[in-house]
Amino acid sequence: MTKLRYAMVGGGQGAFIGSVHRRAMALDGQMELVAGALSSSPDKALASGRELGLADERNHSSWQALLDDELRRPPSERIDFVSIVTPNHMHYPVAKAFAEAGINVVCDKPLVHTSEQAQDLIATAEKSGVVFAVTYNYTGYPLVRQARHMVASGQLGEIRKVIVEYNQGWMSTRLEGTGNKQADWRTDPARSGIAGCIGDIGSHAENLVATITGLEIESLCADLTAFVPGRKLDDDGNILMRYTNGARGVLISSQIEVGCENDLRIRVFGTQGSLAWHQENPNRLLYSTLDAPPQIFTRNGPGLCNAAVKASRLPAGHPEAFFEAFANIYVGAGEAISARKENRVLAPIEGDFPGLVDGARGVRFIEKTVESARSSIKWVAF
Amino acid sequence: MTKLRYAMVGGGQGAFIGSVHRRAMALDGQMELVAGALSSSPDKALASGRELGLADERNHSSWQALLDDELRRPPSERIDFVSIVTPNHMHYPVAKAFAEAGINVVCDKPLVHTSEQAQDLIATAEKSGVVFAVTYNYTGYPLVRQARHMVASGQLGEIRKVIVEYNQGWMSTRLEGTGNKQADWRTDPARSGIAGCIGDIGSHAENLVATITGLEIESLCADLTAFVPGRKLDDDGNILMRYTNGARGVLISSQIEVGCENDLRIRVFGTQGSLAWHQENPNRLLYSTLDAPPQIFTRNGPGLCNAAVKASRLPAGHPEAFFEAFANIYVGAGEAISARKENRVLAPIEGDFPGLVDGARGVRFIEKTVESARSSIKWVAF
Amino acid sequence: MTKLRYAMVGGGQGAFIGSVHRRAMALDGQMELVAGALSSSPDKALASGRELGLADERNHSSWQALLDDELRRPPSERIDFVSIVTPNHMHYPVAKAFAEAGINVVCDKPLVHTSEQAQDLIATAEKSGVVFAVTYNYTGYPLVRQARHMVASGQLGEIRKVIVEYNQGWMSTRLEGTGNKQADWRTDPARSGIAGCIGDIGSHAENLVATITGLEIESLCADLTAFVPGRKLDDDGNILMRYTNGARGVLISSQIEVGCENDLRIRVFGTQGSLAWHQENPNRLLYSTLDAPPQIFTRNGPGLCNAAVKASRLPAGHPEAFFEAFANIYVGAGEAISARKENRVLAPIEGDFPGLVDGARGVRFIEKTVESARSSIKWVAF
Amino acid sequence: MTKLRYAMVGGGQGAFIGSVHRRAMALDGQMELVAGALSSSPDKALASGRELGLADERNHSSWQALLDDELRRPPSERIDFVSIVTPNHMHYPVAKAFAEAGINVVCDKPLVHTSEQAQDLIATAEKSGVVFAVTYNYTGYPLVRQARHMVASGQLGEIRKVIVEYNQGWMSTRLEGTGNKQADWRTDPARSGIAGCIGDIGSHAENLVATITGLEIESLCADLTAFVPGRKLDDDGNILMRYTNGARGVLISSQIEVGCENDLRIRVFGTQGSLAWHQENPNRLLYSTLDAPPQIFTRNGPGLCNAAVKASRLPAGHPEAFFEAFANIYVGAGEAISARKENRVLAPIEGDFPGLVDGARGVRFIEKTVESARSSIKWVAF
Repeated sequence: MTKLRYAMVGGGQGAFIGSVHRRAMALDGQMELVAGALSSSPDKALASGRELGLADERNHSSWQALLDDELRRPPSERIDFVSIVTPNHMHYPVAKAFAEAGINVVCDKPLVHTSEQAQDLIATAEKSGVVFAVTYNYTGYPLVRQARHMVASGQLGEIRKVIVEYNQGWMSTRLEGTGNKQADWRTDPARSGIAGCIGDIGSHAENLVATITGLEIESLCADLTAFVPGRKLDDDGNILMRYTNGARGVLISSQIEVGCENDLRIRVFGTQGSLAWHQENPNRLLYSTLDAPPQIFTRNGPGLCNAAVKASRLPAGHPEAFFEAFANIYVGAGEAISARKENRVLAPIEGDFPGLVDGARGVRFIEKTVESARSSIKWVAF
Repeated sequence: MTKLRYAMVGGGQGAFIGSVHRRAMALDGQMELVAGALSSSPDKALASGRELGLADERNHSSWQALLDDELRRPPSERIDFVSIVTPNHMHYPVAKAFAEAGINVVCDKPLVHTSEQAQDLIATAEKSGVVFAVTYNYTGYPLVRQARHMVASGQLGEIRKVIVEYNQGWMSTRLEGTGNKQADWRTDPARSGIAGCIGDIGSHAENLVATITGLEIESLCADLTAFVPGRKLDDDGNILMRYTNGARGVLISSQIEVGCENDLRIRVFGTQGSLAWHQENPNRLLYSTLDAPPQIFTRNGPGLCNAAVKASRLPAGHPEAFFEAFANIYVGAGEAISARKENRVLAPIEGDFPGLVDGARGVRFIEKTVESARSSIKWVAF
Repeated sequence: MTKLRYAMVGGGQGAFIGSVHRRAMALDGQMELVAGALSSSPDKALASGRELGLADERNHSSWQALLDDELRRPPSERIDFVSIVTPNHMHYPVAKAFAEAGINVVCDKPLVHTSEQAQDLIATAEKSGVVFAVTYNYTGYPLVRQARHMVASGQLGEIRKVIVEYNQGWMSTRLEGTGNKQADWRTDPARSGIAGCIGDIGSHAENLVATITGLEIESLCADLTAFVPGRKLDDDGNILMRYTNGARGVLISSQIEVGCENDLRIRVFGTQGSLAWHQENPNRLLYSTLDAPPQIFTRNGPGLCNAAVKASRLPAGHPEAFFEAFANIYVGAGEAISARKENRVLAPIEGDFPGLVDGARGVRFIEKTVESARSSIKWVAF
Repeated sequence: MTKLRYAMVGGGQGAFIGSVHRRAMALDGQMELVAGALSSSPDKALASGRELGLADERNHSSWQALLDDELRRPPSERIDFVSIVTPNHMHYPVAKAFAEAGINVVCDKPLVHTSEQAQDLIATAEKSGVVFAVTYNYTGYPLVRQARHMVASGQLGEIRKVIVEYNQGWMSTRLEGTGNKQADWRTDPARSGIAGCIGDIGSHAENLVATITGLEIESLCADLTAFVPGRKLDDDGNILMRYTNGARGVLISSQIEVGCENDLRIRVFGTQGSLAWHQENPNRLLYSTLDAPPQIFTRNGPGLCNAAVKASRLPAGHPEAFFEAFANIYVGAGEAISARKENRVLAPIEGDFPGLVDGARGVRFIEKTVESARSSIKWVAF
C-alpha cells in the first residue's frame, strides 16, 4: 500500500498541536511527512524540519516557498495534501493558497476569523475540487459516530433538548505573560480573533452538537465573561440555544472552572430516548429510553453501527482515546484524498470527516455568540 | 426526652409527599403526630386520620376545625407545630392562620404563589414570633452542608461560576389526564401557579445555589418551554444567571429529559477551588483546587465540618439518602421549636433549616423567571 | 391499622445497632416499642428505657424479667415480637427463651456461636411455631431482590462464578483498648466468637451470595490473618469457594483495607449473563449479557420484579439506602408475624426476610472458614 | 534525530498483536521497521512484508534467514533490535538466537514456556550484553508508574494486602474451532503452554502487582477451572497469594465472566494508605489514607512523580490509553538500546521497561499456579 505524502505548515519546535497531528497520522501508518514549512520563523522552521527528518530540499523557511516548490515538482513527487496547524490567523491565507493550487487541505479549527473568509474558502475549494478537512477532532470518537447514527436512525425520536459543555480550568489564573505560549496566543485578539474560550473550545461543543444531532441553530443568547483580571477575551461563556425544529439547548464553555481538565460532554434528549457521552471517559455511551433500563454502549462492544466499528482499532475494554479519535479524522480525509487521486467514488462509510461546511458554521457561531454577548436583545438570529 | 407533638394538614390517602414528611420525622423518633386535617375532602380527611391512628377528637375534616380545636386546648396538650403538605395553592391561607395564632409552622415548598403573600407571611411570623420552616429538603444532605461550610470558610476563594441542574424525564409524555395525580396538579395553573417545572424543581435548584454559596441574584435570562403538546405550563427551563458579586451561572431544570430520574446536581467554581455534588449519589462531594489532586469527601468520613457530622446517622460507607436529608430539616426546625418553647437560645449548629427568607426568595425566583421567559429584553433584574 | 408491639433486648445507651433497628422500624410506622431490657447493666437498662419513653412497668433490668412480665400479661397486651440486638454471645440464650415461650423473634446476626446452638434454635422454633428472622440487612435492598429474581428466573443462565467482597478499613490500626466500643467487642473472642472480620462482615458476604444465587457451598479454602499487632481475631480473610453445581467463587472480607468504608459488592457470572451490585451506591444494578450492551437497572425504575418494586418507597432517582433496606427486613418479618397472629397464609411476595436457615448456614460458614484457615489441607468440605 | 531500526518476527497478515506493537512504536516516531520475517508461513511472511513496505532484500520468509542477513550487514545498516510477536511457543528459539547474536530483543509475554528456558535466556543476555525487554504493556500506563512511585516512597506504609483482577468474558462460549484465531491458539496446549487464562492474562495481573509493589511471592494456592465444555486449558483462575513480607493477596483472572471486557484492576493496601487503579479508565488513580479524604490523581495532573509525567503525551483530561502505555514500554527499551549503542549510561528515569527478570518470574508464576491447582496441599512454595 502506498502512503499518502503530506507537508505540514506550522507545528515546529515548541508548538503543541502539530505533534498531535503527526502522532495521529503515524498511528495508522498511512501517511508520510515529506515536506514542511514548520514555523513562521525561518530559522526555527528549518531546524524543526531537520529534527523531523525532512530532506533539505523539502524543508522550507516559509509556506510560500513550500507551495512554490511543490508546484514545480512532477505529480508523482508532489504532496497529496497539506496539514495546516498554524495559529488561527494564518489558516486563511495558507489554506486559500494551497486550495487554489489544487492541493488538498487538512486545516485545524477554528477555520478562519470571519464568515467572509470561510465563504471564500468554500468557493475556492469548489472551484479547484480539492478535499478540505477541518480537524474537529472529537467527532472522530467511535461513540460520537454511534451517537450520530442513533439520532439519525430515529432511536431518540424527535430531538427536544441538547446540553453540551466544555469545561476547563487551566486558565483560572493569569497564565498569559508568564511564559505560557498556549495561554499567550489564546488571549491575544490578534492571533485568536474576536473570541477566547468560546472560539477555542466552545466551537468544539457547537460542532459536536451539529455532528451528532444535525440540528440547525435558529437563534442564540450568550453571556460571555473575562473573569481573570486584565484578560481581553472571554474565558467563560454560557449560551441558550434555539434550534429550527423547536429544540432548546444549553452550551457551556469555560476555561476558569478550577478542577476541570478537558471535560467535554454532551447530553441529547429526544421524545423517545436520550444519549450521554463524555470525552474524558470516551469508551462508553449511555442510551436511555422511555420504558427500559438504560444501556451502556461500549467502543467495539455489541450493538454498534458500521461507522463506529470502523473507527475502532482495539477490542472492547482496551481503552482508545484522544489520539485515535484524531487519527480517525485523518483516516476519513485520507480516503477522500485517495479517492480523488484515483478518480473513484467513496464507499458508504468512507470519507467521514468534518469539512468546510462545519468550519464555516463554526466561524458563524463565534461571530453570532460575540454579537449576542454584546447585545441587550435577547435572541440573536443565526 | 419529650417528643414534639404535631398536626398535619394535607397528606391524606393517595397523597405522596405527606407520607415522606411523616417517615422523615419518624426516623428520628422526636416527633409525634397527634392531630390532623389530612385532606380537603372531609370524608377522606377523617378516613386518613383514622388510618394513621389519630384520636377521633383530634381528627378533623378541615384545617379550620383543626386550628379552632387546638386553640381551645391548654398549652400542655396543644401541638408544637403544624406540618403543611397540601397542594401549593393552600400553603398561604393555612400557614397564615396558624402563624397568626402563634403556632409554629413547617411548610412544603414552593412557599406560596406570590411575593406579596410571601412578604405577608414574613410579617405575620415576625409579629407572632413563630418558627417557620420551609422544606427545601435537599439542603438537609450532610454534604450540602459541608459544601456550604467550605464556601463560607473561603476554601473555594471568590465564587465565579455556578452550574446547577435538576434533570427529570418522567413527564416526557402526556401523563396528565391519564389518572396520574402527580402530573395532574403540576400541569394545572390553578394548583401549581404560574410555573410548572421551574416552580416544582427549578426552585430546588435555586435554593441549593443560595444555600451553598450565599450568592445573591442580580438578574436572569430565562427560556421556558412546554414541550409536550397541550401542556399549559413549562416542562423545561434553562436560565442564565448573574449574581451581584459578578459570578455567572447556569440553571437547568427539566421534566422532559428522558432517562433522567431525580438528577439534581451542582458545581460551584471559585478562584481557588471547586465543588461538585449529585443527589443521586449524595454521599460524596468532590473538591478540587488549583494545584493538588481533587479530593472526595464522604458522608461521615474524614475532614467534615460539625454541621455535616451532626447531619449524619450512620458510619461512612453505609449510604444515607433522601429520607435522612429530609429528616434533617425537621431536626433543625424541631430544635428551634423546642428552644422557643423552652425560651432558650440555640447552640451554634442547632436550628439549621430553610426558612421564610428562602421561601420568599424562591417565590420571587419563579416570578422573575416567568417574567424573563415572556420578555424580549435580555436581562431581567432580580 | 394496628401496629405490631415489640420489646427490645440490648440496644441501650452507647450501643450502635439497636438504634439502627429502631429507626428502621420507625420509618414505616408499623411497629411500636412497648417494652425492653435494653442493657445487661441493670441501671443502664432502666435509664435507656426511660429515655425511649417506655412505661416503668415494661422497662426491665434484665431480659429474664422482661420475658416473665410478658408471659404474665394477657395476649391482648403482650408484645408481638422481641428484637434481639445484644452482643453476639447473648443471642442464643435470649432467642432460645423467647422462642420457647412462643414469642416471635427478630435477631441480629451472626445468629449464635456454634452450629449446635443454631440447630437447637431451629428445633425450638419449629416446635413453638414462632416466626424467627435474622437481620442480614443487605438482603433488604430492592436491587438485591431484583438480582435474586433475575438469577432465579434464568436470566443469567447457569451460574459459574461469584465474586463477593466486603471491604472495610476502619480497623487498620489498633482501635481496641482506646475506648472504641465497636472495636473492643469485635476483637474479643469471648464476645465475638472464634472469628473477627469473617464473622462480622464476611458472614454478610456469604449471605448475600446465598440469597442472590441460591448456590450451596461444597467446600472452601480460607486464608485468615490478624494484621494489627496484638489482635487476637482475624481482621482480613480471603476465601476460595466451590459450589455444588460446579461454580467457583472468591470471598474477600477485610477490616484493614485503608480507605474502604462499607464497600460490600457482589458480581455474579452465569453462562448467559452477569450482575454487579455495590452497597455504597445501592440504587443501581448492572446487568450484562453475551450479545447486547449492558443495562443499568435502577431502584423503582423500569423492568423490576414485584419484590423489588414492593421494597421501594420513593420514585426512582431519589436515593434510598441503608435504613430502608434494613426496614424491609422488618416489613417482611412483620408480615409473617401478623399472618401468624391472624392465622392466615402469606401472599406470594410477603414475608420476605432471612430466617434461621440463613442464620445457621452463616454460623457453619464461620466455623468452616476458621477450620480451613487452620488446616494445611486445601479444601475443607462444607 | 536518528530513528532506531527494527525487524519484526511474527505479526503478519491476520495477526493481532503485531500491529499493536507497530502502532505503539509509530506513535512516537522514534523507530522504523526495516526488516522482517512476519509469519511462519513463508508466502504469508513475504506478502505481509510487502504490505508493510519492506524492501525485498530485507523481507524474509523465515526468522533464521532474517538473522543471517542481518549478521551479514555492516553495523551501520544492521537493525538495532528485533521485536518478537509470534505465538508463545516461538518466543524462546527466536529470542535465544538473536540475543546470542548480540541483537537487542523486545519480546511479547509470556516470555517462554518453562523456567529453564527463562534462565537460559537470562544467561544468554548477560553474556552477550543485549538489552532485553518483555512487553508487559500495562506497566507503561503513567498512573501505574505513579502507583509504583507512591509505594516505593512509602506513601502507603508497609503493604498488607493486594487485590488484583483481570476479568474478561469473551471466551464464555466455545469460540475455538469456529474460526476465531485468537481463541484457537489460546486454548491449544501446544501453542499456549500448560496454562490458558492464567498464562494469557493472569500473568499480566501478577506482573502488575510485582511492578507496583515490589512484593515477592512466598507461596500461593490456586483454583483453576475450564468452564467451557471441551476446553483443555483453564478459562478461570482464582489464587490466594502470600508474600514474603507477610502481605496477603487475591489474584482473579477469568475469560468467562460475561460482560467483562478488559477489566484489569488493582487495589493495594498498606498500613498508611491505599491505591486503586483500573485499566478501562486508566487516567485516574485513587489514593486513600487513614485520616483524610481520598484523592484522585489524574494523568498529567498535579502531584505526579517524574516517571509518570514523562510517560504522558497530552494535557490532563485528554485521555491517553492502551497504545500510549504500550508505546511507553518501547520508549524505555529504546532509551536502553540507544544508550548501549552509544555506550553511555542511562539517566535516572530513562530505560523504564520490564525485562527478563519480570519475564522469568512470570513463567515461574504460571508453573507454580498450575502446580498448585493440581495439588491437594494448600500452599505451594514459590
